[in-house]
Amino acid sequence: MIKLASREGSEMLVSRNHQAEDSQIKVKGCIIGGNQLAVIAGPCAIENEEILKETAFKVRGCGASFLRGGAYKPRTSPYSFQGLGEEGLKILARVGEEMNMPVITEVMDSDDIELVAEYSDVIQVGARNMHNFALLRKLGKTDKPVVLKRGLSATIEEWLLAAEYILAGGNMQVILCERGIRSAEPWTRNTLDLSAVALVKELSHLPVLVDPSHATGVRSLVTPMAKAAIAAGADGIMVEVHPHPEKALSDGEQSLTPRGFSQLMKAIEPVARAIGRGVR
Amino acid sequence: MIKLASREGSEMLVSRNHQAEDSQIKVKGCIIGGNQLAVIAGPCAIENEEILKETAFKVRGCGASFLRGGAYKPRTSPYSFQGLGEEGLKILARVGEEMNMPVITEVMDSDDIELVAEYSDVIQVGARNMHNFALLRKLGKTDKPVVLKRGLSATIEEWLLAAEYILAGGNMQVILCERGIRSAEPWTRNTLDLSAVALVKELSHLPVLVDPSHATGVRSLVTPMAKAAIAAGADGIMVEVHPHPEKALSDGEQSLTPRGFSQLMKAIEPVARAIGRGVR
Amino acid sequence: MIKLASREGSEMLVSRNHQAEDSQIKVKGCIIGGNQLAVIAGPCAIENEEILKETAFKVRGCGASFLRGGAYKPRTSPYSFQGLGEEGLKILARVGEEMNMPVITEVMDSDDIELVAEYSDVIQVGARNMHNFALLRKLGKTDKPVVLKRGLSATIEEWLLAAEYILAGGNMQVILCERGIRSAEPWTRNTLDLSAVALVKELSHLPVLVDPSHATGVRSLVTPMAKAAIAAGADGIMVEVHPHPEKALSDGEQSLTPRGFSQLMKAIEPVARAIGRGVR
Amino acid sequence: MIKLASREGSEMLVSRNHQAEDSQIKVKGCIIGGNQLAVIAGPCAIENEEILKETAFKVRGCGASFLRGGAYKPRTSPYSFQGLGEEGLKILARVGEEMNMPVITEVMDSDDIELVAEYSDVIQVGARNMHNFALLRKLGKTDKPVVLKRGLSATIEEWLLAAEYILAGGNMQVILCERGIRSAEPWTRNTLDLSAVALVKELSHLPVLVDPSHATGVRSLVTPMAKAAIAAGADGIMVEVHPHPEKALSDGEQSLTPRGFSQLMKAIEPVARAIGRGVR
Repeated sequence: MIKLASREGSEMLVSRNHQAEDSQIKVKGCIIGGNQLAVIAGPCAIENEEILKETAFKVRGCGASFLRGGAYKPRTSPYSFQGLGEEGLKILARVGEEMNMPVITEVMDSDDIELVAEYSDVIQVGARNMHNFALLRKLGKTDKPVVLKRGLSATIEEWLLAAEYILAGGNMQVILCERGIRSAEPWTRNTLDLSAVALVKELSHLPVLVDPSHATGVRSLVTPMAKAAIAAGADGIMVEVHPHPEKALSDGEQSLTPRGFSQLMKAIEPVARAIGRGVR
Repeated sequence: MIKLASREGSEMLVSRNHQAEDSQIKVKGCIIGGNQLAVIAGPCAIENEEILKETAFKVRGCGASFLRGGAYKPRTSPYSFQGLGEEGLKILARVGEEMNMPVITEVMDSDDIELVAEYSDVIQVGARNMHNFALLRKLGKTDKPVVLKRGLSATIEEWLLAAEYILAGGNMQVILCERGIRSAEPWTRNTLDLSAVALVKELSHLPVLVDPSHATGVRSLVTPMAKAAIAAGADGIMVEVHPHPEKALSDGEQSLTPRGFSQLMKAIEPVARAIGRGVR
Repeated sequence: MIKLASREGSEMLVSRNHQAEDSQIKVKGCIIGGNQLAVIAGPCAIENEEILKETAFKVRGCGASFLRGGAYKPRTSPYSFQGLGEEGLKILARVGEEMNMPVITEVMDSDDIELVAEYSDVIQVGARNMHNFALLRKLGKTDKPVVLKRGLSATIEEWLLAAEYILAGGNMQVILCERGIRSAEPWTRNTLDLSAVALVKELSHLPVLVDPSHATGVRSLVTPMAKAAIAAGADGIMVEVHPHPEKALSDGEQSLTPRGFSQLMKAIEPVARAIGRGVR
Repeated sequence: MIKLASREGSEMLVSRNHQAEDSQIKVKGCIIGGNQLAVIAGPCAIENEEILKETAFKVRGCGASFLRGGAYKPRTSPYSFQGLGEEGLKILARVGEEMNMPVITEVMDSDDIELVAEYSDVIQVGARNMHNFALLRKLGKTDKPVVLKRGLSATIEEWLLAAEYILAGGNMQVILCERGIRSAEPWTRNTLDLSAVALVKELSHLPVLVDPSHATGVRSLVTPMAKAAIAAGADGIMVEVHPHPEKALSDGEQSLTPRGFSQLMKAIEPVARAIGRGVR
């Protein structure tokens, strides 16, 4: 019934008609899109090596397999903290290596792709750049897996077509990530659209993650939405964790403490099992 | 952090500060808001006694406890089927009695409250009437439980304040129902907002249902969203079921067949158990 | 290109295909939908006779032809001022008569139609009741002109179909009123959609007003949006005016003072002339 | 009342508190932000030299002062026409020179800024790149005027902060352009938000244009919205014109013919005069 935009007669590369079985993206022994759910955790921004190491140590202990952290931060105001840049990338790579966790970080400029690819195992495209077609096209030429977040108010079709830009360039390792869409509801930062997750899993072979931290912007909603995401069929979650959220340089309100993250992991495990999946 | 609109110093009646423990609404031996999830199923509109009876028989066999069906239908066009009116109410009451299922139906006009209350165990306020304050105020004077659907683009606060209209009138038996909010996404009828469910459960003692049929408008999304709703903490679901969706006078595209409903029930059961609840 | 929902083969009553020439609604010698723009002004709520009389006297002096004021107020919270009810209707009728201005007020409940019709020359359906089909159907049976505001997030098609409910009942005197739709923009109360005005004028013969006060919720935007509305082809405007906005019982932030209203009238006059229309 | 995001104590550069008088951007003898309205016209995409020259000749004859045309097109699908690239830039520069019209074209990638700046008098940032902060930051280092379109669902504050990125880099020549925001209304491509125009003129000294072509996506709405934009206080308009819209490689449905553009110019002239401005 729902039709993916056509490609002059042949099927779109993101479509299940092009590839029936689920894509599995392998990163240093971890798999995204397999039966085991992928759990990606870490601070919003990389602030310094000590905090990142402490966070990594704790989230790994709770069962997270990937470490996230931003070196380039897309901030609404030019006067907000913009991230540590290359220094942040180096910290992330060192901590990831030490903790034996693959790392994920965001690229904001097509000029930085090479640099980011040097330090990071997976490259993230943020919601604000989902329609940055020049960036997408260049990511189609790298050999790194790409996490593509859904745009602030992108339709599902636009999101899949953004992924198609990367696949059409030759890079089939794309992981989608739902992070909420903008709505008129003021009590949550965005409105998490879990029907998009179920619909994308139906139409596409690509793995789909959910980011309940950015989607809600409210700490107490992260765990319920992580559970719901998994029940809806998501292949994993991406969660912001900070040892001291009240001191975080960005997004403190939605960050879990390591203790809160540990509770989340305990809460999602039985839901994962209920639908025949594991968490690790 | 999030503050419910104040009531001159004292707490709002819908608030957990006014009543800490969950409200449980009892209807003919069934409970909404308890540990067992409430499952409400039936056709969008009551078309005739035979179809309703067939549907009721089948959904009851799968574990539904409540029977739904519309006698007054809020249709966008005056030229669409508007429901059977009082005749529909009578059919609903007869079938409910015969099948020993409490029944739920919508009231659209304050003039009809008495009539609807005569035949129905629970009275529903549809999304289009969530802001019909005259209707809400009169429902505050009845002794029937009321299912209050969230408005098409109502904020969570407006929804809770609409419930407060009913409670303030003296009727504490209000059940909230999330059914999706309007967004720019064309592939789903509405955008199901499950964070609203988790947030309302945090702020209010009222039970919260989810209607995945109206929320998505897409048959294949009903079961994944029912699972997600339960994982998010909903107290039950409201699902459209029709023996022959392709011939339904309204909402055929989103209706499950009895067989589809049976699969839904099998799919939600382990999720309910995973969070410590039962389905019946 | 854009197709109005069909009516089994024949044209919808609201459509220009059904009636090519503009509908003109005559109320006590004033016309809505003619070459002269209709200006409707007054306080959000009727608070007492003195304030209403003072407002009416001043807005009439500036060129307003209709007096508005709410006796039944659709308030989000049950604890906010709900209007004076029948007492308010009586005040409105007396002041209208004394000032020789036709009056407009809102009905919220189908039970009150008769009462409101007894006192008011034009009956208003507010945005929150645009989808109250029982109310619309009964208004189709009255002989009073009806101002039908666009719903909070109603599409243009839904708005025209809501008008069709009234016309189909036999009452052809419907005046549409655009008052902004809900969006994610926090700096304005709603987002005024002037393309809807131009589109409705193209598709339908019904007159269209614009309410820049509710649309923006910001006093300084009322005059620029009134000018834009007229340039877009609106048949008139509906503006909130209060002698002491800072003391108003509702909507003070968006109310003009009589002095501000006088400036608005001076500002719109040349725009009206530029497109070949007059203000009085 | 409305507060622009602060800059550690001092005023934001976009703010009227920083600069009270209107900014005027001078481009080859033409001014944007002065008493005369700026009219920018041309095809969506540069298709070939002949079509562009024909269009330029005709729109100049009707009073347009700037020529627009896209060489890099942000297309939702990777399989749609993506623009002629550098070849398109060369055509645009040649035609602009020949017709003695300053030219405007879009940059999509920070890597292309230098190239685009070589050929174009004004650089445009499209809606999909409003949040491409790397691009904005680099544009702050050029000496070319920048037209910054509002993002698909950007708030007014986010839009002004995006402009602030450019100003903070040292480039004060920023021109804002409202082009509609995404809404649930299916009959228009976007919802033109003219209150944003009035509000930005109140808060900021930067000039503001309106693009009624992209805002509506409907040819018959372009002229009414151009009139409304000018009445609301816009400093100019940006309009798509194509000699044969039915054959256009993109956006044909919203493009005016040269004849339609001539009618638009005649229609806006009296509105401009009514508010004390001229069109040329």
